[in-house]
Amino acid sequence: MSRMTLAQQLTASLAARIDDGTYRVGDRLPSLRECMRLLGHSKNTVITAYEALASQGLVEARHGQGFFVKQGTSGHYEPEEPPPYARAMDTIWLMRQQFVREPGHSPLGEGFPPVEWLMDMRLDKFTRQIMRMGVTTLFRYGNRLGNASLRQHLVQKLASYAISANPRQIVTTHGANHGLDLIIRRFLASGDTVLVEDPGYYPLFGKLQLQGARMLSVPRLPDGPDLDALEAHLRLHKPKLFFLQSVGHNPTGSDISPGKAHRLVQLAQEHDFILVDDDALADFKPAAAIRVSALDQLKRSLYVGSFSKSVSAALRVGFIAGNKEVIDELGDLKMLLHTSSSELCERTVDVVLMEGHFLRHLIRLQERVKSATAAGLEMLDEMGAEVFCRPEQSLYLWARFPHFDDARELTRLLLPKGFMIAPGHIFSPEQSRINPWTRLNVAYLNDPVFKSTLQQ
Amino acid sequence: MSRMTLAQQLTASLAARIDDGTYRVGDRLPSLRECMRLLGHSKNTVITAYEALASQGLVEARHGQGFFVKQGTSGHYEPEEPPPYARAMDTIWLMRQQFVREPGHSPLGEGFPPVEWLMDMRLDKFTRQIMRMGVTTLFRYGNRLGNASLRQHLVQKLASYAISANPRQIVTTHGANHGLDLIIRRFLASGDTVLVEDPGYYPLFGKLQLQGARMLSVPRLPDGPDLDALEAHLRLHKPKLFFLQSVGHNPTGSDISPGKAHRLVQLAQEHDFILVDDDALADFKPAAAIRVSALDQLKRSLYVGSFSKSVSAALRVGFIAGNKEVIDELGDLKMLLHTSSSELCERTVDVVLMEGHFLRHLIRLQERVKSATAAGLEMLDEMGAEVFCRPEQSLYLWARFPHFDDARELTRLLLPKGFMIAPGHIFSPEQSRINPWTRLNVAYLNDPVFKSTLQQ
Repeated sequence: MSRMTLAQQLTASLAARIDDGTYRVGDRLPSLRECMRLLGHSKNTVITAYEALASQGLVEARHGQGFFVKQGTSGHYEPEEPPPYARAMDTIWLMRQQFVREPGHSPLGEGFPPVEWLMDMRLDKFTRQIMRMGVTTLFRYGNRLGNASLRQHLVQKLASYAISANPRQIVTTHGANHGLDLIIRRFLASGDTVLVEDPGYYPLFGKLQLQGARMLSVPRLPDGPDLDALEAHLRLHKPKLFFLQSVGHNPTGSDISPGKAHRLVQLAQEHDFILVDDDALADFKPAAAIRVSALDQLKRSLYVGSFSKSVSAALRVGFIAGNKEVIDELGDLKMLLHTSSSELCERTVDVVLMEGHFLRHLIRLQERVKSATAAGLEMLDEMGAEVFCRPEQSLYLWARFPHFDDARELTRLLLPKGFMIAPGHIFSPEQSRINPWTRLNVAYLNDPVFKSTLQQ
Repeated sequence: MSRMTLAQQLTASLAARIDDGTYRVGDRLPSLRECMRLLGHSKNTVITAYEALASQGLVEARHGQGFFVKQGTSGHYEPEEPPPYARAMDTIWLMRQQFVREPGHSPLGEGFPPVEWLMDMRLDKFTRQIMRMGVTTLFRYGNRLGNASLRQHLVQKLASYAISANPRQIVTTHGANHGLDLIIRRFLASGDTVLVEDPGYYPLFGKLQLQGARMLSVPRLPDGPDLDALEAHLRLHKPKLFFLQSVGHNPTGSDISPGKAHRLVQLAQEHDFILVDDDALADFKPAAAIRVSALDQLKRSLYVGSFSKSVSAALRVGFIAGNKEVIDELGDLKMLLHTSSSELCERTVDVVLMEGHFLRHLIRLQERVKSATAAGLEMLDEMGAEVFCRPEQSLYLWARFPHFDDARELTRLLLPKGFMIAPGHIFSPEQSRINPWTRLNVAYLNDPVFKSTLQQ
């Protein structure tokens, strides 16, 4: 492929941009001059590439206007059909929907903060420091448990949440979802029962379905899981794990109360199950928020962390903390299944965490979330919406609007008007139920157009 | 953690280096002056950090000589015990052994080329180009199938192997092992039968054991799988997949013959199984080498590729190519289980592939492999060893030495003399069998000390 000419390379790269929807049907490609300046190519190279695209039928030249993407060429416009197989089909379909972002649409239902909230951490500025940490290790497989320096930093991060751990109690992962997958594969076989929150983190449900696990729903209340419902399950079943989110619960934005956290740790001990505390939204919350994993000190709990939503989702760096024996086993499983994680990405996070501006970044991020949460709650009040809880700061709010008993109906009405919301049923392990709630991303909520659209 | 002082950061970082074995028992830490110059810290900061390490018992000051790592502090020296669980225990134990590299030992049994063979590709030189491809996408989840521009480059790479594919027939993975895992989880349930080569790629066996699949061994001959043995299996069983390596087979270094490749594709069609062609060592071989996936044109075959051994194992970038429907499903599974792959790492590989010096790198790499293979074969001949096949260029040679019917015995004899070899039984699905063969990495083979040691 290195034998391709510059023009061939440019052709391939532009075709890829058309295929992935960067350039869409009817879009004008950059002018010859722009393309020359942007990419440093000669005029001849650019012309050759554009003509090659035209001869492939991907673009057409319009006299005096430039090159335009032709009908029916963008991969992005292929209808997204549910795949023809398997247990986790619904979740897969929903995740695919979340990955498709219609330009111009307000992504109110998105799980991710706006990129602008993250970009003050200039990832490209760290290269020199990353390379200074040693070049040879940038070519080899990494440590089974992950980069040692990063794990040392994670020890400090956990300490700020009052969780005491040493580096051997931490294994890095390709993000929180990879961590959840390793835990599921270590502990669950087909037919095993497992406790999940309802509503809860829906990509987890798909992973559990794929493994053939049986989910027992524990309703999530504004102060944490419904312990009466949990105890009712425990009288009939012997679940191995309870997946929950102590802090910044997805989708409701609620936090667990100290009393419930305490009782939950007691129940885990009495009934011999493990609490899997998914803390993917930790960086959006004050460090002092209470977690079951802090009460239990990782004895019967596993802490799952992520940098996807506060540093970058493109790095794929997360981690699991737990007792040394379980982490050792999870490290083995990670090695067996995926060899090792990315030294380049882990070092990037390591350097980010070492720098004083990460603290400043978090302060800014949390200020943004705080004011967006307040503004969002105010707007929901004005609109007569019912809110599930009123967190001081949370990336998500969980609300229902008057006259809508099924949020899917609202979703269908809002979509053609340019608003993508996340209807409540997708966050329930039984996805078919009618659900009036919807998850709203506070970053996009304070929008007068959304308000007036809804009021119509 | 950002609230740590510089001295605390330095302390944590040095402690991590001791924990991961960079500094080992008895090693002298860099002098104060070196440390100041290297890291740009003040003298006070360095002294505070060194004293903190001393007070934690990790290092000791020796008068006038500096600071030395104390006994019993390095995590690296903890004995590696087999983990207490599960089906894939043996493979896990073996993989752990492979990750431990004794300094001063000749890693003859290692599966990886020397870092010096890769380092002419200066990964740190590409940062500017990587960033120029767009900053915002460096924060978000990537495309479900992987970076579009990289997939376009992979289309060209496959074309050079005479495999015709479009970008929608490719899904990127966190390395070839992640690819194998996705395929196993898509196609196999507990109890399913699957064909594997014997000897073959042992980390694959562990993954299959974990999934509960039943392995049927097909002996590997110098010209490819033993088709008589394969047909005998097919009379009794209905396997869903056959995992093989057409080219640069691990561990034997052998390549499939055109006739066998042709017959194998026919058998796959007649008996309705899929050929999983693991091509992790493609970059060590001439592009013209024959592959079952090229004969079959990805109809009933899946091609698994990797950049771990020819660019960097620290990036974790690999891919699967296949027919559009299967790739679509594998892309869904990847999304469900691990959300997306790393945009940063995939762009790094994308830029590497775009550059003309990748071609130069491959030429150098292949020249090195070629001359090391020739020298290795010559040495094995002189020592009276039997070689399984005589490839013109291969990272591995598969040999047996006179007087050793069990390579484990040879392993035990060589280890205290500073040579780590890979005994044959680990590459067999039935790991308990006595096996006279051993896999030798040609990069380390032409070593007069090894020769004289063996002759003793």
